[in-house]
Amino acid sequence: MSLPSLDSIETPAALVDDDRLEKNLQKAAAYMREHGLRWRPHTKTHKVPELAARQLQAGASGITVATPREAEVMGTVADDVLLAYSPVGASKLARLMALPSRVRLSVAVDSREALAGLAEAARGAGRRVSVLVELDLGMRRVGVPTPEEAVALARAAAGTEGLEYLGVMFYPGHIRMPLAEQGPALAEVSRRLGTFLDALEAAGLKPGVVSGGSTPTLWRSHEVVGMNEIRPGITPFFDRASAWMGVCGWDEVAYSVLATVVSTAVPGQAVIDAGSKALAKEELPVGSYGALLERPEVVVHALSEEHGMLDLSRTTWRPRVGARVRVVPNHVCVSVNLQDELWAVRGGQVVGRWDVTGRGRGPAIRE
Amino acid sequence: MSLPSLDSIETPAALVDDDRLEKNLQKAAAYMREHGLRWRPHTKTHKVPELAARQLQAGASGITVATPREAEVMGTVADDVLLAYSPVGASKLARLMALPSRVRLSVAVDSREALAGLAEAARGAGRRVSVLVELDLGMRRVGVPTPEEAVALARAAAGTEGLEYLGVMFYPGHIRMPLAEQGPALAEVSRRLGTFLDALEAAGLKPGVVSGGSTPTLWRSHEVVGMNEIRPGITPFFDRASAWMGVCGWDEVAYSVLATVVSTAVPGQAVIDAGSKALAKEELPVGSYGALLERPEVVVHALSEEHGMLDLSRTTWRPRVGARVRVVPNHVCVSVNLQDELWAVRGGQVVGRWDVTGRGRGPAIRE
Repeated sequence: MSLPSLDSIETPAALVDDDRLEKNLQKAAAYMREHGLRWRPHTKTHKVPELAARQLQAGASGITVATPREAEVMGTVADDVLLAYSPVGASKLARLMALPSRVRLSVAVDSREALAGLAEAARGAGRRVSVLVELDLGMRRVGVPTPEEAVALARAAAGTEGLEYLGVMFYPGHIRMPLAEQGPALAEVSRRLGTFLDALEAAGLKPGVVSGGSTPTLWRSHEVVGMNEIRPGITPFFDRASAWMGVCGWDEVAYSVLATVVSTAVPGQAVIDAGSKALAKEELPVGSYGALLERPEVVVHALSEEHGMLDLSRTTWRPRVGARVRVVPNHVCVSVNLQDELWAVRGGQVVGRWDVTGRGRGPAIRE
Repeated sequence: MSLPSLDSIETPAALVDDDRLEKNLQKAAAYMREHGLRWRPHTKTHKVPELAARQLQAGASGITVATPREAEVMGTVADDVLLAYSPVGASKLARLMALPSRVRLSVAVDSREALAGLAEAARGAGRRVSVLVELDLGMRRVGVPTPEEAVALARAAAGTEGLEYLGVMFYPGHIRMPLAEQGPALAEVSRRLGTFLDALEAAGLKPGVVSGGSTPTLWRSHEVVGMNEIRPGITPFFDRASAWMGVCGWDEVAYSVLATVVSTAVPGQAVIDAGSKALAKEELPVGSYGALLERPEVVVHALSEEHGMLDLSRTTWRPRVGARVRVVPNHVCVSVNLQDELWAVRGGQVVGRWDVTGRGRGPAIRE
């Protein structure tokens, strides 16, 4: 396929700076090697199998997914897939069991119900599925909150035909402050994790895999005692929240949404054609909804579905209707999820195009 | 195509109650007839041509779209399409000009630049495009803010080959309070609109079309003096914000997202598999992110990408893992935009399936 010029691409369109992407991959890989951590990137961020392949090539030991659709798509390039999500319901289980037999499938579980459903599906499919018991270490979203429950669930997994008890996983998604301020929160995660690991070891259920990590805590992952695998998702792209937290420099952000100024009629602002259906509406700790890559002092202060309102109060820049800008969204994962495709760019040239294949739910019903 | 049973549909999945949908269409149509308003529903809400056809059948005089993709898709069922958005950029203009010649195309414009681009494209395509001058009546998003600018732009449109000056449009998107409290805001819209209409008439540019309206103000549209067409989008489905504003009863909400409880591990909440990638994250005035259709006291108090956290503090209901619920999102448009398809249901039976065809950007480049 011949690639278009950047100027001819219709906006809004998602761009990935391929040089920055590659640097981000190598930097993450070097960190993992330095600290002896296994790297299992969460591919829900990009949903592109070609990018999962790049991560594996850079040193990832497997990949993480959130949905059966992502598992199916990433299973085309990865042999080791962790579904960091409890699969509940016949359709999801059937799709997981239909993954190619070469794919080693691990699954997060925090309930007896999910465990039972998974075991039944595994036996029916003649598969052996690895189980990670999901722990709640402070986020209060999912995961068993006590060591006793973790031991009980691990024991059930270990004793159930069709399943294999592999270890534990958690997600420290409550840690979203700047990198420099994360010390106490990380120490608390270590402390809580320790109580779980001690109880499991005492019960003869010492986990082989202790999987955690997030992009906000990425560069301090080695401070979490006992963790041996991390699953950052945003890492290859980064976003405005990552930069705000100090996880990356602004010049390391690889993802942006190309947009066109469509109106300057209302004084004090310019309106672009990237709204909540291209950037997604997430304020996060950083506030507003995004900022211009080339002018980070210009923020997207309001979003309608197809309109993004640029606040011009902190700049003398006055764009004309028709001008093009690149917007860094606060949260890249939900912006990517709104795109049909990502355009790889290098120095103003389009060098590739990736379909966001893992997006959507895929076949909702297995015929 | 044979339709699946509701129980076999994989979650999260978007459901449309077809009986409620039909009632909502008829109720809107009756209101328009009663008040002599033309009804041009905004199809960005559903993005489904079959539903646009239902709206036209119920009495809509044309349809509204926000993107070239929507125009292309809705142009298959409608002969009268308003793009309520300034098309800026060669690709968008080319796609609009390639619409079937039977489609009467109107376009909103609030700048000389957009007008010039549109005129050039229209002449190049041998088309005549109708222009609505977009006014800002208080939302401060797009639209010319003064009657002088409106007159100048209308005069330019009227005097430009390839274009036809048709009238004005505005969107009162700043009016989001409960229906009963909207009186003063609507009076202010009428007052402002009057200054524009007076100036245009004095300049010999009396608009034939005065297009406005929104779902929040739907049932008070007749109070806006001088308006003869409205473009509500959310009307056929409604959502939690609509119900909160009193625009519909809870038993008139036709759209919900079917979800499965995947975790009850953390006390005080249940977690469903509909997160920000199914419901979208919009707090709006109503707060939180959605509520259960059958138990509106149970709200979605937090959202991750694939997790929705149900607050169980105001209910004695304690769902098990595997239970299914229907969630009404705050803002239906952005939830639909996250779906591959909508399932029509009637009394617990699946009676149809609609692809969300107008979603996405469509061909980004015309070859």
